[in-house]
Amino acid sequence: MKIKALALAFATIAASSTLMAQKQFTLQDLLWGGNNAHNLRAENIFTTWWGNTALQSTPDEIKKVADGSTLVTVEELNTWAGVTPEDKNKVVRSGHSVSFPYADKSLAMVSGLAKNILIDFEAHKVEWQQSIPEGATNRDFSTESRNLAFTIEGNLYVQTADNKTVQISTDGSTDGSQNIVYGQSVHRDEFGITKGTFWSPDGQQLAFYRMDQSMVPSYPQVDITSRISQTYVDHYPMAGETSHQVKVGVYNVLNGKTTWLDLEGADDDYHTNISWAPDGKTLYIFELNRDQNDMRLVAYDTATGKSLHTVLQECDEKYVEPLNGLEFLPWDATKAVMQSQRDGYNHLYLLDLKTDKLSQITSGKWVVQRFVGFNKKDKTLIYLGNESDPRRSCLYSVNIKSGKRTLIGAEDGVHYLANLSEDGQQVLDAYTSPTVPRSINLLSTKTGKGKNLLTARDEWEAQGYNIPEITSGSIKAADGQTDLYYRMVKPIGFDASKKYPTVIYVYGGPHAHNVDASWHWSMRGWEAYMAQKGYLLFILDNRGSEWRGKEFEQATFRRLGEVEMEDQMCGVNYLKSLPYVDADRMGVHGWSFGGFMTTNLMCTYPDVFKVGVAGGPVIDWKYYEVMYGERYMDTPQTNPEGYERCSLVNKAKNLKGRLQIIYGHNDPTCVPQHTLSFIKASIEAGTQPDLFTYPGEGHNMDAYHQPHLHERITRYFEDHLNK
Amino acid sequence: MKIKALALAFATIAASSTLMAQKQFTLQDLLWGGNNAHNLRAENIFTTWWGNTALQSTPDEIKKVADGSTLVTVEELNTWAGVTPEDKNKVVRSGHSVSFPYADKSLAMVSGLAKNILIDFEAHKVEWQQSIPEGATNRDFSTESRNLAFTIEGNLYVQTADNKTVQISTDGSTDGSQNIVYGQSVHRDEFGITKGTFWSPDGQQLAFYRMDQSMVPSYPQVDITSRISQTYVDHYPMAGETSHQVKVGVYNVLNGKTTWLDLEGADDDYHTNISWAPDGKTLYIFELNRDQNDMRLVAYDTATGKSLHTVLQECDEKYVEPLNGLEFLPWDATKAVMQSQRDGYNHLYLLDLKTDKLSQITSGKWVVQRFVGFNKKDKTLIYLGNESDPRRSCLYSVNIKSGKRTLIGAEDGVHYLANLSEDGQQVLDAYTSPTVPRSINLLSTKTGKGKNLLTARDEWEAQGYNIPEITSGSIKAADGQTDLYYRMVKPIGFDASKKYPTVIYVYGGPHAHNVDASWHWSMRGWEAYMAQKGYLLFILDNRGSEWRGKEFEQATFRRLGEVEMEDQMCGVNYLKSLPYVDADRMGVHGWSFGGFMTTNLMCTYPDVFKVGVAGGPVIDWKYYEVMYGERYMDTPQTNPEGYERCSLVNKAKNLKGRLQIIYGHNDPTCVPQHTLSFIKASIEAGTQPDLFTYPGEGHNMDAYHQPHLHERITRYFEDHLNK
Repeated sequence: MKIKALALAFATIAASSTLMAQKQFTLQDLLWGGNNAHNLRAENIFTTWWGNTALQSTPDEIKKVADGSTLVTVEELNTWAGVTPEDKNKVVRSGHSVSFPYADKSLAMVSGLAKNILIDFEAHKVEWQQSIPEGATNRDFSTESRNLAFTIEGNLYVQTADNKTVQISTDGSTDGSQNIVYGQSVHRDEFGITKGTFWSPDGQQLAFYRMDQSMVPSYPQVDITSRISQTYVDHYPMAGETSHQVKVGVYNVLNGKTTWLDLEGADDDYHTNISWAPDGKTLYIFELNRDQNDMRLVAYDTATGKSLHTVLQECDEKYVEPLNGLEFLPWDATKAVMQSQRDGYNHLYLLDLKTDKLSQITSGKWVVQRFVGFNKKDKTLIYLGNESDPRRSCLYSVNIKSGKRTLIGAEDGVHYLANLSEDGQQVLDAYTSPTVPRSINLLSTKTGKGKNLLTARDEWEAQGYNIPEITSGSIKAADGQTDLYYRMVKPIGFDASKKYPTVIYVYGGPHAHNVDASWHWSMRGWEAYMAQKGYLLFILDNRGSEWRGKEFEQATFRRLGEVEMEDQMCGVNYLKSLPYVDADRMGVHGWSFGGFMTTNLMCTYPDVFKVGVAGGPVIDWKYYEVMYGERYMDTPQTNPEGYERCSLVNKAKNLKGRLQIIYGHNDPTCVPQHTLSFIKASIEAGTQPDLFTYPGEGHNMDAYHQPHLHERITRYFEDHLNK
Repeated sequence: MKIKALALAFATIAASSTLMAQKQFTLQDLLWGGNNAHNLRAENIFTTWWGNTALQSTPDEIKKVADGSTLVTVEELNTWAGVTPEDKNKVVRSGHSVSFPYADKSLAMVSGLAKNILIDFEAHKVEWQQSIPEGATNRDFSTESRNLAFTIEGNLYVQTADNKTVQISTDGSTDGSQNIVYGQSVHRDEFGITKGTFWSPDGQQLAFYRMDQSMVPSYPQVDITSRISQTYVDHYPMAGETSHQVKVGVYNVLNGKTTWLDLEGADDDYHTNISWAPDGKTLYIFELNRDQNDMRLVAYDTATGKSLHTVLQECDEKYVEPLNGLEFLPWDATKAVMQSQRDGYNHLYLLDLKTDKLSQITSGKWVVQRFVGFNKKDKTLIYLGNESDPRRSCLYSVNIKSGKRTLIGAEDGVHYLANLSEDGQQVLDAYTSPTVPRSINLLSTKTGKGKNLLTARDEWEAQGYNIPEITSGSIKAADGQTDLYYRMVKPIGFDASKKYPTVIYVYGGPHAHNVDASWHWSMRGWEAYMAQKGYLLFILDNRGSEWRGKEFEQATFRRLGEVEMEDQMCGVNYLKSLPYVDADRMGVHGWSFGGFMTTNLMCTYPDVFKVGVAGGPVIDWKYYEVMYGERYMDTPQTNPEGYERCSLVNKAKNLKGRLQIIYGHNDPTCVPQHTLSFIKASIEAGTQPDLFTYPGEGHNMDAYHQPHLHERITRYFEDHLNK
């Protein structure tokens, strides 16, 4: 496998021909929020499962994939729900919003704003329904018990299948202070946490988070749309400062009692990836000290709240980062699949919970990107991995005992959907590759073969747009050994004898990548726009980015930005070696971590980069949040030199080129203190960055604002680089 | 007088020759905060009075103007105060900080941070001193009684001559909330209010303000320099919203009692220009309703707090604006001088407080700019007025009975100092004129003649700088009748056959003017810098600006910006008539009201102005403060169409040229909500203003930041206008 990956890496592959068509892109065509974007997207179809029957939904109906026959129409569902054709408030608005949660029952489920409803499409009647209180958010429905958990402000409630509602929380905030918050995501969504309620398999017990953040200062975010500007509460724990405190409770629906887990460790430890044992008696939590270098998987008795024992411990000199819970084998409740990068790459392990023994299932210098599920019949695991090329994400099954891996579907591109049937024998697979805008397939997880449901045409080509040449390849990192992958987008009408202004787009931070084998090598719409204006674009995933293993990722530890910039400068040197790159007109642009990189590159290599646009940058890691920040940088108290060296406040004096910083005025992630501290330092040093802000916007501008934002970014390069 | 004024108005006078010297200005030379600015300022001397003896101070001594003999040296004063030559903490640091408050006593007063001290320079000893508590601000010392009033946080104290301290306030804020504030300026420094304590003539009674602003929301100003950004309290009453409530108390030092005045009217009325009757029994207050169209001068009995009677009432369809208190005749305690623009121009009146009869002293189509004082012997009044030319400020005496006016000193320029001797027979006069950097004179107020003490040389010329041609003239306003005065600064090396990019600098709001007959016609340093870079600068005082009479000022009522822009467009048309103005390269720049004008002009005449830089702008008058805002605009409730028409939020969609808005991130005057609302509206409309902010700065950047700011402003014109 290795040879093939390398071969691919060194090749530069033209993703599309540079057909000299006449049609010019606008930002409204290219960007997600653009008003013509929908006309340029690849065709799509929407699929789902009813047990082991693959279905396809349309706005009007749900039909069977196998023979195209109609299962049920939207009009029928509305009729059976008592809605007449004249009613404006349909229960079901589209086939896309219907699901089929019970493999063995003819029940269609619709979850609306105001109610959950199950319609029997064979008996032609409403089987069950529940009204949902106004303002209920974080809704978590148990298919098994039909109990519904939800939150209102800081409080947690359970509405049972017979529509009785109980308040679980006793002291949640209702005064807007958000001091005590129940049933919501904690630890600022790090460690894979996305929600705060977890139903037991039978849906009769609810594990939930309680977060006390009363001790965490509120960052003063200002709402300028009120008559007189006012602040609103946003508790923000900054690196090295007091963090919030999380507890875990278990509410038992049958006896109405709440048991609090007897958590060990410090008050500000992390409690992550909550997993229920199949019998609902034990809860497993991946617990991590605040320093994030000592992780323990602890089993709790949900009846008493007592910790039963520590199943395993994983320590690391730098950090351990649990991101996934346990997945119990459907055929053996004493064993679970676990993920870990303890051998240097994220792989699948089998954990025997009787013996606490961990056996490695997959291995190699590649990573499992996502555990998908089980083929229950063949007792294999299904996952996405990048074994064939670091830029790819392909679908595989692996035999637990033999470790034998089988490719499912195309060995190309990025597979982004992998939706298993109830028995796991089939999968609805979707992917894009550099030359394939979208391919959707119904495949056997055993043979890896199946039926193509859709191969979308290239809308850009079909509609006669002028498409730039997009290639991908690799160069060596600053360590001289590691392969780094890049994407290059050449200007429209490229002529190798000319010299082009060149813009590096960069992110560079952990848990992300910019270059992969999806359509157009994952080119962003703005890059096509810039290519059309005569720029060459270059995007390189430096060390520290994702899916390349632990050493690659952890190379940046305690010195964020340094190794990343060294690698980006390898990209610059590569560019300078190309006769058609104008080394006197080099620009850089990035957002968030990429804004940090952009500002850093402008100030560290002031004679290399003439123009930069940095969005929502981190400027000083001490203003960033505890969880993410301390993982990579430790604290300002324990790593003072690292924080000083990485602070761009100290580099503002070096700015020579033109740098525009853009930030969401209400950015709750990289709070405005970052950008404003840089601006203040620049003023004091006599340097002249430019600035813009989007009032009311957060860390990323919403889709609607994207064309405005990118017009702004483009104009800055046009003003200062393209002349 | 009229003919002469007109003749001057139509002439354009070269203020200096365009000597082709080689020396180039930097912003550090030209701006107040520049590190070389002190070397380019006109020479100055510092004068003061000891009774009727004119003195001149230097860092080392105080000498008599008459014969140059030394009165006392700084070293002597320190010695007599017990300071040895080795002590680092001198009592007296410079001759400039010494005053001579008693005409008949040989006492030198020094007010330091920690103490007030009176040194007898004939007896060579400390006559009296008082220590001042740490944190004491708003210090108000009575020369007569040697009582000292001061505030700490929201509280008011009096320290008596025998150094006993009494707390006057009973409920001032001490918790940082600033809810109740004693002894400080109120009504946001409008109506001529600059302080909150007022000693009676004998210094034994203290009138003081108490302001309750607990009902006024605090604008969320953010301090980004703390570890985690935090807001601080800044009560800001916005137009049409709840305003603060002011009361007036009188503390009697001799009996220790406080009497509250029994104020009539509404809680949010204005109580302005507090004046003591010479006998200390009556207090006069100019009171104004919140609508600012009904002013009453009310007399209060300070012993009982009861109102004695309404001395006079002045109403106006638009507004009345009291700006000055009563000045009692030193020779007749029943009569006082008062100022009013009731006849259309600000003039002096004699108010008989026995009969409430008002007699006009000065009149004509010009204004009294400042009442200076009395010639007690000749019973004349001394004032500054612009009778000879609206751009001038000259010194006059006027006989109360005959109304006969006598010029004192030069009939030219802007006289900015007019410091009378104790008897008012002499005046220390200082002025600059278009060609005179500074002239200081000791004059007789009777004859108007005297002795020149200093005529400063032109440092710019002497140091060989390349000075632009600066002229002033007038054009007609949009009404076709009114004369408007302008200043024009031509580019260095001006060649009338070429076409120059042209920048209009504008303020345009009330209580200010940009063009006057001071040195270089009042050219700002930045204008010289721009002239050096090849720009032509044009500055026009439109209707609505100061010192031109009530009709001129009130033309803008309820429609701020409209008439002002019409007049500025007359300036544009004049410029377009000049062959050397490049009408395709016109820019505009202004700050505060001028930022409002700049943004307004850019959005209202998008095809005229290519580039604008607006500083600290008002964007919507509903975000501006009650006192100033409602005077000119009434309230959003009573003038909704006016507010809508004048709101730049509604005009953001029209922007075509390049507009950069710059604001102090902590601007407490034009709060950031202005600029941010415009930015938000622009984003929604798809227009692209640029933006910059100075963190920690207020409405105007401090001197230290001025070079950075003006480098920024200049660069923007260089980027977008000068190409």
